[in-house]
Amino acid sequence: MYQLNLHDLTVEQFLAEYWQKKPLLIKGGFANFEDPISPDELAGLAAEEEIESRIVSKSKGEWQLETGPFEDYSAFGEQDWTLLLQAVDHWHPESAVLIEPFRFIPNWRIDDLMISFSTPGGGVGPHLDQYDVFIIQGMGKRHWRVGMPDATLTQHCPHPRLLQISPFVDCIDVITEPGDILYIPPGCPHEGISVDASLNYSVGFRAPAQKDLLTGLADYLIENEIQGERYTDAGRTVATNIGEITSADLASVQQMLQGLINDPKLLAQYFGSYITHAKHELDATEPDPHYHLDEIAEYLLEGSVLARLGGLRCCYIQATAADDISLFINGHTITVPATELSTVKQLCEQIQLDAQTCIAFAEDPSKLKLLTMLINQGYWYFVE
Amino acid sequence: MYQLNLHDLTVEQFLAEYWQKKPLLIKGGFANFEDPISPDELAGLAAEEEIESRIVSKSKGEWQLETGPFEDYSAFGEQDWTLLLQAVDHWHPESAVLIEPFRFIPNWRIDDLMISFSTPGGGVGPHLDQYDVFIIQGMGKRHWRVGMPDATLTQHCPHPRLLQISPFVDCIDVITEPGDILYIPPGCPHEGISVDASLNYSVGFRAPAQKDLLTGLADYLIENEIQGERYTDAGRTVATNIGEITSADLASVQQMLQGLINDPKLLAQYFGSYITHAKHELDATEPDPHYHLDEIAEYLLEGSVLARLGGLRCCYIQATAADDISLFINGHTITVPATELSTVKQLCEQIQLDAQTCIAFAEDPSKLKLLTMLINQGYWYFVE
Ligand SMILES: O=C(O)CCC(=O)C(=O)O
Ligand SMILES: O=C(O)CCC(=O)C(=O)O
Ligand SMILES: [Co+2]
Ligand SMILES: [Co+2]
Repeated sequence: MYQLNLHDLTVEQFLAEYWQKKPLLIKGGFANFEDPISPDELAGLAAEEEIESRIVSKSKGEWQLETGPFEDYSAFGEQDWTLLLQAVDHWHPESAVLIEPFRFIPNWRIDDLMISFSTPGGGVGPHLDQYDVFIIQGMGKRHWRVGMPDATLTQHCPHPRLLQISPFVDCIDVITEPGDILYIPPGCPHEGISVDASLNYSVGFRAPAQKDLLTGLADYLIENEIQGERYTDAGRTVATNIGEITSADLASVQQMLQGLINDPKLLAQYFGSYITHAKHELDATEPDPHYHLDEIAEYLLEGSVLARLGGLRCCYIQATAADDISLFINGHTITVPATELSTVKQLCEQIQLDAQTCIAFAEDPSKLKLLTMLINQGYWYFVE
Repeated sequence: MYQLNLHDLTVEQFLAEYWQKKPLLIKGGFANFEDPISPDELAGLAAEEEIESRIVSKSKGEWQLETGPFEDYSAFGEQDWTLLLQAVDHWHPESAVLIEPFRFIPNWRIDDLMISFSTPGGGVGPHLDQYDVFIIQGMGKRHWRVGMPDATLTQHCPHPRLLQISPFVDCIDVITEPGDILYIPPGCPHEGISVDASLNYSVGFRAPAQKDLLTGLADYLIENEIQGERYTDAGRTVATNIGEITSADLASVQQMLQGLINDPKLLAQYFGSYITHAKHELDATEPDPHYHLDEIAEYLLEGSVLARLGGLRCCYIQATAADDISLFINGHTITVPATELSTVKQLCEQIQLDAQTCIAFAEDPSKLKLLTMLINQGYWYFVE
């Protein structure tokens, strides 16, 4: 497991002083860093249809962007290109653990692990993102510059699918070495140019915009066939201006919309389901045939270990300590009695359930039933 | 033009005592009623692809539903079927005027005119609707029964696309004759069985449900690329339960959603656009080539008369008397200065602009420009 070393800073101080406020270079944030993946393995993943990959390259001052899968890299030459893979945590468990040291931020805020391999001179150009990111330097070295948000920066597209920004003033200018970590808040301009062949790991965050939340709620209402109440106007008076939509009409509309948003149960159910929905494909394989409860119990009692599917989003909401818990897994909701809070926490917090935990699960019928369902959906799987 | 005769009732009394509350039979609501359309003309419209038509029939106790277009009715026999056409006001100006007497209810609440032709014994069966309706009896007679809302009624589908209800207790039981009008509020069970060959005209209303309003707002944000603000959490403290979506998290989400709904400008722009969007196809034909402003001025000054496209939904919103007016026409918004309020009202209120009004439009450059645009979109057209 990787251990985050913030040196003089505590996590509390990091959150108070830097999180969402200003960029930070954490020199040697991971001591004695060893890459969880090799460039060859990464190329292997980039050959897969299901994995979102792209290559950004620059040749004679012209930026290019190509999307994968990729089989052959000879056309790109020896320098000035970067291969980027999204959501590698869904496919490569050894890399997925790079996310764990950052879980002082809750699960729902964490998005995915992107990995890039760059040749000398490679980079995606100066740009800004709408999300926080921790960029970990793996093998090789990269020249990173990071600046503060600046409203005077202008964006342009040197290629239709590449958004870059005008030159920016940096507050961090560093050659990152293996184990160095950059924290970059949303809106901070940044640019990394590889010094030699290098790997970078980006732990990205998820921060929905107002539009995302509203369209997500609309989708939730549709999927769950929630119609709500219909507009009524008993007691209406004769319209004086038949073409007018009056402020009273608009106030009714507003009240109806507020009625949806101010329903705490609906809001909780919707948001839990919305935010645990994976954006990228998961590597789930349902066991075929499904396991019987008894089989699972047997394996667990024998000392098996269970792993959680990479990238699986697990969260819970409990209104009060006496209430049932809504456990949200990949957009689905499971209602669990309040007495099972520790079970729910284990599922949400641990990427592996060790033998001892597994035995305890096997010995409790309701825990066993829950686990059987999760295993039969391919969300947890036996590793030992 | 048709004149609504409520007899002892004033419109104010009708609204206070019946609207959205209880059904009402208005005997001879239209005195000396003459049908604006014949069964043959209706059959002609039912042959059109663009017009939504269906035939509901009952033979040997089995209900059937077929959707148009229809060319031939011989298979349906002489009795026990009804042909229903939606949004006939979009296609048949003489029928469209049947809506006008009901415009003590504002434009945005009015939906469309449905027309049915029934053979003896014909009807759609006992059912309830979610919307208010005025059903006008044209030629022939029909046996109508209407009841009060009743939570004990159960719904069933005698045909996959036909929703009917269990037997209900009526409070109105009448053989309607030409010019009789039934007002039926949402949720009131009703059934009409034709005595002889008969025509019925349904002036229907529009009442969005909470879900419709929210999905409409989501669509508006997407169409207008309104992203809003992104979730932020500067000052976050270390997560104690990383799996938990806390009540503070949910409060932020709620606040972001409220921020959209409580933006009066956004709400007004969205709702005006949403509610003026026609649900059924319009019969708009853009003049090709477009008219020049000068040509239009010439026609108008010559004494031309302009008609508004049938079923075109026109509304406006003005926050205060000093503010610009948002004129909404078929989902589009036109911003008009406050000084043009009377112009906006004329467009929203009148289905025809007479020669005198047209001349006044022609003489005012900004009115003329607006009208030119509307004519070139096919929304108003010359009739004389
Ligand atoms: O690794 C790269 O080249 C790009 C990383 C980056 O810009 C990011 O994660 O925001
Ligand atoms: O005309 C018909 O047969 C059906 C009319 C009706 O039920 C309605 O307009 O709600
Ligand atoms: Co970036
Ligand atoms: Co009906």
